[in-house]
Amino acid sequence: MALSLLEFPVPTLAVMSLMIISAEDTSPGLRKRGGIKEKDLDTTELKTLVCLEFASKVTEDTVDWLKSKIDAPKTKDGAGLVAKKWKRNGDGPWVLLISGTTERLLLSAELMEIKKPCKDGSLREISVKHLDLFQDSEDLDHFLTMSEKQRIILQELESIRTLDEDISIPGIKSVTFYRGEAIVAGLLMKKVIYQLYPLHDKKELKYLAKEWYQAVVKKQPIEHVRRYFGETVAMYFSFLGYYTLALLPPATIGLVSKLLTESDLDLLIFFSFFNLIWATIFLESWKRNCATLAYQWGTINMEPFSKARAAYYGELGVNPVTGILEPQYPNWKRLVKLYTVSLPVVIVCLCLAVKVMLIFFYWDAITAEYSSKHPSTMATLLTLVPGIGYAIVVTIMNAAYNWLARALTDWENHRLESCHENHLVMKLVVFNFVNCFMSLFHIAFIQKNMEMLRRSLATLLIVQQLIQQCQETLIPYLIYKYYKRKITKSHEKQNSDQSDSDDEWSEMNNDLIFAEIESKKRAYVSTLDDYLELYLQFGYVFLFSAVYPTAAFWALCNNVMEIRSDAFKLCRILQRPFSRPTSGIGVWQVVFEAMGALAVMTNCALVAHSPQMKSLMPDHKEVDILMWFVMAEHAILLLKYLIEMAIPDEPEWVKIAIEKVEYEANQILNMQRLIDIQKTLGLQHPKEAKKREEES
Amino acid sequence: MALSLLEFPVPTLAVMSLMIISAEDTSPGLRKRGGIKEKDLDTTELKTLVCLEFASKVTEDTVDWLKSKIDAPKTKDGAGLVAKKWKRNGDGPWVLLISGTTERLLLSAELMEIKKPCKDGSLREISVKHLDLFQDSEDLDHFLTMSEKQRIILQELESIRTLDEDISIPGIKSVTFYRGEAIVAGLLMKKVIYQLYPLHDKKELKYLAKEWYQAVVKKQPIEHVRRYFGETVAMYFSFLGYYTLALLPPATIGLVSKLLTESDLDLLIFFSFFNLIWATIFLESWKRNCATLAYQWGTINMEPFSKARAAYYGELGVNPVTGILEPQYPNWKRLVKLYTVSLPVVIVCLCLAVKVMLIFFYWDAITAEYSSKHPSTMATLLTLVPGIGYAIVVTIMNAAYNWLARALTDWENHRLESCHENHLVMKLVVFNFVNCFMSLFHIAFIQKNMEMLRRSLATLLIVQQLIQQCQETLIPYLIYKYYKRKITKSHEKQNSDQSDSDDEWSEMNNDLIFAEIESKKRAYVSTLDDYLELYLQFGYVFLFSAVYPTAAFWALCNNVMEIRSDAFKLCRILQRPFSRPTSGIGVWQVVFEAMGALAVMTNCALVAHSPQMKSLMPDHKEVDILMWFVMAEHAILLLKYLIEMAIPDEPEWVKIAIEKVEYEANQILNMQRLIDIQKTLGLQHPKEAKKREEES
Repeated sequence: MALSLLEFPVPTLAVMSLMIISAEDTSPGLRKRGGIKEKDLDTTELKTLVCLEFASKVTEDTVDWLKSKIDAPKTKDGAGLVAKKWKRNGDGPWVLLISGTTERLLLSAELMEIKKPCKDGSLREISVKHLDLFQDSEDLDHFLTMSEKQRIILQELESIRTLDEDISIPGIKSVTFYRGEAIVAGLLMKKVIYQLYPLHDKKELKYLAKEWYQAVVKKQPIEHVRRYFGETVAMYFSFLGYYTLALLPPATIGLVSKLLTESDLDLLIFFSFFNLIWATIFLESWKRNCATLAYQWGTINMEPFSKARAAYYGELGVNPVTGILEPQYPNWKRLVKLYTVSLPVVIVCLCLAVKVMLIFFYWDAITAEYSSKHPSTMATLLTLVPGIGYAIVVTIMNAAYNWLARALTDWENHRLESCHENHLVMKLVVFNFVNCFMSLFHIAFIQKNMEMLRRSLATLLIVQQLIQQCQETLIPYLIYKYYKRKITKSHEKQNSDQSDSDDEWSEMNNDLIFAEIESKKRAYVSTLDDYLELYLQFGYVFLFSAVYPTAAFWALCNNVMEIRSDAFKLCRILQRPFSRPTSGIGVWQVVFEAMGALAVMTNCALVAHSPQMKSLMPDHKEVDILMWFVMAEHAILLLKYLIEMAIPDEPEWVKIAIEKVEYEANQILNMQRLIDIQKTLGLQHPKEAKKREEES
Repeated sequence: MALSLLEFPVPTLAVMSLMIISAEDTSPGLRKRGGIKEKDLDTTELKTLVCLEFASKVTEDTVDWLKSKIDAPKTKDGAGLVAKKWKRNGDGPWVLLISGTTERLLLSAELMEIKKPCKDGSLREISVKHLDLFQDSEDLDHFLTMSEKQRIILQELESIRTLDEDISIPGIKSVTFYRGEAIVAGLLMKKVIYQLYPLHDKKELKYLAKEWYQAVVKKQPIEHVRRYFGETVAMYFSFLGYYTLALLPPATIGLVSKLLTESDLDLLIFFSFFNLIWATIFLESWKRNCATLAYQWGTINMEPFSKARAAYYGELGVNPVTGILEPQYPNWKRLVKLYTVSLPVVIVCLCLAVKVMLIFFYWDAITAEYSSKHPSTMATLLTLVPGIGYAIVVTIMNAAYNWLARALTDWENHRLESCHENHLVMKLVVFNFVNCFMSLFHIAFIQKNMEMLRRSLATLLIVQQLIQQCQETLIPYLIYKYYKRKITKSHEKQNSDQSDSDDEWSEMNNDLIFAEIESKKRAYVSTLDDYLELYLQFGYVFLFSAVYPTAAFWALCNNVMEIRSDAFKLCRILQRPFSRPTSGIGVWQVVFEAMGALAVMTNCALVAHSPQMKSLMPDHKEVDILMWFVMAEHAILLLKYLIEMAIPDEPEWVKIAIEKVEYEANQILNMQRLIDIQKTLGLQHPKEAKKREEES
């Protein structure tokens, strides 16, 4: 294996792939082999898969130049796809409607190692040579799902690279590229391309509507979601569903105990202990569930999107791994930025957030005192001022910090998408944690006002989440409706102007209208905000179990709605996202586990500080009670750790299946090695050797 | 890759390897190719590498049967090695002296994927086809080191398997084998083979003596140790050396602060904080060092000895991964054993140990009280009784528990060596922890007698470690000396009887004497006990830094001696161990890290409980002081965690080197894929295609 490197010089690979993958060359051969009638390959018939919309000021020169790049075969530095040019209603921007021939897409699918189920039930990487082994390979045009095709097109667009140094693009003077830079990503970065989005599939959307967000009690159609939106989105909804299910026991117990008794300490202690252990078991069994899903999706061994970011910059240099010329940014510079700027800035922001909170509590106390001393309507209204002021300040700070976190992470210039996302998530998680929980901690441990804590939690869980759902779903939906009506009307008007329009034109026109409506929708950036929301909710439920047992119930109700509203949002309100494979929820697993560990500390502290505790153990010194709870906390943390160790991260059958694949691959390598040895020694084929021996 | 499985049916592999690897067939071809003069291959000339000693009652029938198995070529179910029969002085046991031809060993080395440095400096798996690319391949006989040859012989001996069902062995009626069982491992298990050991190399030993254990101030010759003893032993000595070096700063600071001031609280707090952080940094940077070593040794990506244990039993069934018939033991049975027997038994043992300790403290207090009331020589002697009694009981309990832990782990019937070792290590670590540290905790936190704690620690660190070194090294050395003299004398007597002995015979005889002396030595079972010793020492040093800062200094002194005495032990006192590759220190990393975390708790508790603390903060309530220390403990634990996250586990260059290998392997796979596509489409070779295009 390792030595065969010496035989195949690596640089030829790039040349070979350029030579082979070319739309014109490949089509006939494949059709013939697949045993499918050769159709007249009219590329105008191809369904548009991806829209590429230019900025409004871009001229036709530039559009033509990029179109020629996209259309050109791989052998001529193109993408080998099919692009149609279209200028949206007169003064609108230029749009390229991109698709690809089935043959072209299949070949890319093999090189991208996309996996598909075989007829024997196993999951294998697509092989054009062995297409007949795969399920559903009779209808080649629909063998790849639409989202797979769109992912392939994205990948091919991103692989269009400049081959000369400092080329300039017709129509735009200011933009230059280094040699080998990805053109489409560069133009997107430089705002020459306004947006790049895949189109929805109306038929599939109808199915999803029925089975997914309009269903009352039904399992989520995760497999369909994956096929339509890709693994990253499907993984989020799986997690959301699994978490919602996991909330059932705490919600039931919490609700029952709330109804039965007001505040029995034993019950509260039992309940919070149950919750802590339950959270551990939930997160561990999610890992297993996640491994099962990733195995079924064929993504279990993948690196989480390890491609370089388009925005990554640096001096051109040789990549030590691949030997390719690309921007290089020294790691020590990034570390210096991290520790001398990002970290201090984040800490200052956190301190600021805490300071603002303390000021709020101070003013709140003052106004409350004033209104109790001078009771009047005016004074009562005055007590509301700090709360409202605080809410406004928090919102502003949140937005500012959000912007700052993204700017800092961009500036840190991480090479990999995954690193970038991890650093961004960490910053957002830490800040949101302080912003959301510090005031609750203040109420719980400084003010020791459990009634107020309960009230705050209820507000956050019920009111705030309702508001969020409106913000996320209702308002964008109304905006979308407005644009849809406007565009449809303007096109109807156009149509009635052009009285000579025939049926075909009107169908084409329908597609264009659809593409235009899609262009007005917002893009689905990432699952980050959705996970963050869940993360905060997880905190509200588990950090304060000992004080507010009904939290799980409200979270459960919210999540049942959340599944539907998020699904609706993705299907109807936002642009379709490009499918992105993933093997898990990544850094969120760590972050949720950290919250689980923190919950042990808060719950132990809440119980130890509770006034009932002291009345229960009046003959014990305060310091002894505290000692007991410190020991209990350590014991529970140890128990959590042991449970985490005891539950394997992958189900046994998944482990065996993966080992089996590795074993078989190893056997093939060994086979190759044996054949090599055999050749070296000048021996005959083993079968013949055996025959000879049997004869003698 | 995945699909090519469909082309090569896997079961033929076993047949092929049987066909090809056969001592007779291979030798001439390789010699020819290697360009080396063909020697007359007289197998009696071969140097003995491994000794196989039978139990004393085994008859010549059995010996001949096994010898024929070892000598037979692979094609006839043998090992293809060379064995010489020898009966040790008259009534002594039968011994087989085993070696192998260079060609035979090289072919196995390729199949075992042993890595060697190439002339270009890279590390590659041995390939018989490309031997000329490797360093030192001019002298084929010494291309493999002696320890590599011994490892290959072990592997080949272990691969001798029965092919028929329930075969019986000549001379032994009682032993039967299932079909496909490994014969040598089975005979070792069943005590038919008394021992199997590789021979030392006197010349190499001399070098190691000079450079290693006789050296005063010299870097350990780790690379030589690896080549001689294998990766597992070399890794232990690397760790020991690294840890000793890491003790320098705490030892210096501890000693200086001890000399400067008696018990300044600020200094103690600073010192223990420094120690806690230092321990974290040490363990993290060891990980990096370990990754570097493993990369240089070519073991970084290996699974830690993932082969099935010889003692593994169960009903015969098909292995779901390999499809081979072998013992299968259901996982749930193992889990039932673990949770219903092993875990309770261990807990009972721990409770017993604690109980015994408490009884000791009780009697100690009583005798002390008695002797203070009735002072007399008799009474003073009486106060020594509990201490002596406790020491005896602890020694007995330790031995009993050691036996119990091994028996339980055997009975749990783990399939993999690594699982078995992990479970054994865990049991031993937990018990030894309780046995060694509980009494110290009792003194520190229940009796709150810091003076006594300091005295106990000093005793443990100085006296106990001296005694251990005597036990480990001095006594076995004397026993070895005794045997050596006895055997040499008896042979001299024999020689003087046989007056017709010529020179050649006497040289042969010398080798036999050497083999006989080796047979009397004890085997080096595993690094487990050595790591356990270090682990306990690590605990003494870091758990109580706040009370006894000189601990690090004593540990440092001990370790400087320990390196030398352990090296001496391995080189001179014990049988040479078979070389075992490893990628790290395995579960010990986890166990040391756990001790580091625990040290945070003990040190915080020690400082918080110290009498100086209360006198320093007289106006604070006890409960407040405690609160502060709980928070400090949590903060330090968090800091430790952050440090662990911030330090990457592998140095950047190792990461890049590994990624580069993966990238190149992937490129080759992609290349293969492209060639496949090309063939499918009936295209010509890409180079030709390019030529054609250039012409047109």
